[in-house]
Amino acid sequence: MKILPSNSTLIVIDVQERLLPKIHESEEILKNVIWAIDLARTIGIPIILTEHCPHKIGTTPDIIRDKFEETDIVTKTYFSAVREGNLLENIQKGRKQIIIAGTEAHICVQQTVLDLLELDYEVFILDSAVGTRNPIDKERALNRMQHNGAEIITRDMLAFEWLEKAETELFKIVLNRFIKND
Amino acid sequence: MKILPSNSTLIVIDVQERLLPKIHESEEILKNVIWAIDLARTIGIPIILTEHCPHKIGTTPDIIRDKFEETDIVTKTYFSAVREGNLLENIQKGRKQIIIAGTEAHICVQQTVLDLLELDYEVFILDSAVGTRNPIDKERALNRMQHNGAEIITRDMLAFEWLEKAETELFKIVLNRFIKND
Amino acid sequence: MKILPSNSTLIVIDVQERLLPKIHESEEILKNVIWAIDLARTIGIPIILTEHCPHKIGTTPDIIRDKFEETDIVTKTYFSAVREGNLLENIQKGRKQIIIAGTEAHICVQQTVLDLLELDYEVFILDSAVGTRNPIDKERALNRMQHNGAEIITRDMLAFEWLEKAETELFKIVLNRFIKND
Amino acid sequence: MKILPSNSTLIVIDVQERLLPKIHESEEILKNVIWAIDLARTIGIPIILTEHCPHKIGTTPDIIRDKFEETDIVTKTYFSAVREGNLLENIQKGRKQIIIAGTEAHICVQQTVLDLLELDYEVFILDSAVGTRNPIDKERALNRMQHNGAEIITRDMLAFEWLEKAETELFKIVLNRFIKND
Repeated sequence: MKILPSNSTLIVIDVQERLLPKIHESEEILKNVIWAIDLARTIGIPIILTEHCPHKIGTTPDIIRDKFEETDIVTKTYFSAVREGNLLENIQKGRKQIIIAGTEAHICVQQTVLDLLELDYEVFILDSAVGTRNPIDKERALNRMQHNGAEIITRDMLAFEWLEKAETELFKIVLNRFIKND
Repeated sequence: MKILPSNSTLIVIDVQERLLPKIHESEEILKNVIWAIDLARTIGIPIILTEHCPHKIGTTPDIIRDKFEETDIVTKTYFSAVREGNLLENIQKGRKQIIIAGTEAHICVQQTVLDLLELDYEVFILDSAVGTRNPIDKERALNRMQHNGAEIITRDMLAFEWLEKAETELFKIVLNRFIKND
Repeated sequence: MKILPSNSTLIVIDVQERLLPKIHESEEILKNVIWAIDLARTIGIPIILTEHCPHKIGTTPDIIRDKFEETDIVTKTYFSAVREGNLLENIQKGRKQIIIAGTEAHICVQQTVLDLLELDYEVFILDSAVGTRNPIDKERALNRMQHNGAEIITRDMLAFEWLEKAETELFKIVLNRFIKND
Repeated sequence: MKILPSNSTLIVIDVQERLLPKIHESEEILKNVIWAIDLARTIGIPIILTEHCPHKIGTTPDIIRDKFEETDIVTKTYFSAVREGNLLENIQKGRKQIIIAGTEAHICVQQTVLDLLELDYEVFILDSAVGTRNPIDKERALNRMQHNGAEIITRDMLAFEWLEKAETELFKIVLNRFIKND
């Protein structure tokens, strides 16, 4: 399944201050989460941010949180972001393709993904923007999510599927800001 | 498919005294089998134990066996625990999700798993709690069981799917006893 | 699914002068693209060549381009070769098996492949003849295309499936020119 | 899918004198082919042997060929053993599970396997008993055959699924001759 920009929503799961430093390769993952958010904003893709028990594990770092309105943030105590709150209501009608970034790949990310797949969403995991404390958990989670129907994607796949074609103004902007300069 | 505690049964297959020492990384596997049993008990998940020809390859080590009533133990001569005895009768109605630990991953574990999948059970293999004498057999068995529809899970996946949410008394107990302290 | 010569079309995607030098192992990939084209010509398999914005990233190198008529070349600005132009019209009726070579595996190749799979074509990726600048993108693209139903093939698989049998004149020619001497 | 002895046929493909020495790890593969044949004979599983153009690439080595009647040998010029001759007629009614050994994994083995899968046979590839000249071709062939529905098995899987249970006379014979002493 190809990603179409008109069908897409980006969900950023639980990138939070007291969890992030424990994540394997956290700097790389934070960088790629920000890359995905900025790319989505540039292309016009809606984004939803989730926070898991923020009074316990901290809120999303300001560098990310400042990009969002409070109404775009779903707070939760269930590990799956689908189990409580208004995540599904916040997804615009027809946008059945969900791109996923965040942590931890094998807990909150995976439970959310498995629930979305059960509800017939098409789910795409941005490989370089999901993390776990223990690398083997990430490897196993990517494998299990794919086994359940999710697709594992790279940054280039996302950018070029959202762009669809070259020779547009948007293409030039994205090429310069999000592809060449990295 | 996400694991739900209300649908789950843990089956521990053939962890037996004369077989265990020959298993690759047997200490790690024994530790994780015990971890899974104690976690299941804490959360309230039913557990079934199988023993293959115990007069030949020994019974389950006392450190595990003492946690069970005799009626929870299925003795067998078929490699698949489904082929004889009362395994299926011992699974409570509605608990169609089977979590698997034990040995050997490519013989008794795999034959049991393939039979359960044929009967439309949903099967989850706890990666770090299944073993073989020869590592290549474990790798091939995980691959084949997944190819047939089973899901490969890690300890964290199991604990957090059984817990479903944070901020409960049970969550605190499990976090301290089964996740942080290991 | 076995490849049948009577059902096959070879599509060579965006092997272009300003892109090729940036591709990982570009010499090997160029060699294998030429091998596939010459083999297809010898066996009588139709071939379509695509070029992406040739005024920007150059045309196909003459060593390849000289083997084609202008009418066999599809020029495009969409990354997927299916989205514009006459690619589908150029595929002969009944030739629903598409063999793919070219670059980049995770952008134009993959978008074309995903579109072809949606249209119920059977797609076969010639592993050693597709490339990307970054090796991880190729690995992820092969995995994702296979997950969507494409098959990953080697040179020998292609040659021997197109030949079907030994002891023919064609077999001897192909064996000597395309298999033994490489 | 579990292998059942009453449903099984073993097919040994193109283990031939002028091809075998070129196969990667040919001694190991020859040893495992013989192991599979002798195990099948002991358990009572029918076996079919194929030879591809024996006047060109030699017959099967006598150490194997002497175990067969001429009527159990299918000679062919097509790479797929299904395309000509009496292979399918030689498979007994109801024995829809085919265990595969032989060479080369990505040519005659794979074409035969893909044809059998199309005909709704269940196919099991004995990993250690199939070979190719180039290791990457074996890896890709196993992957592609599994992707098409075949299962990859090890020696132990085959022996213990054919045996089904312990504590029989057959179990003791097989354990001593085919498992312990290797």
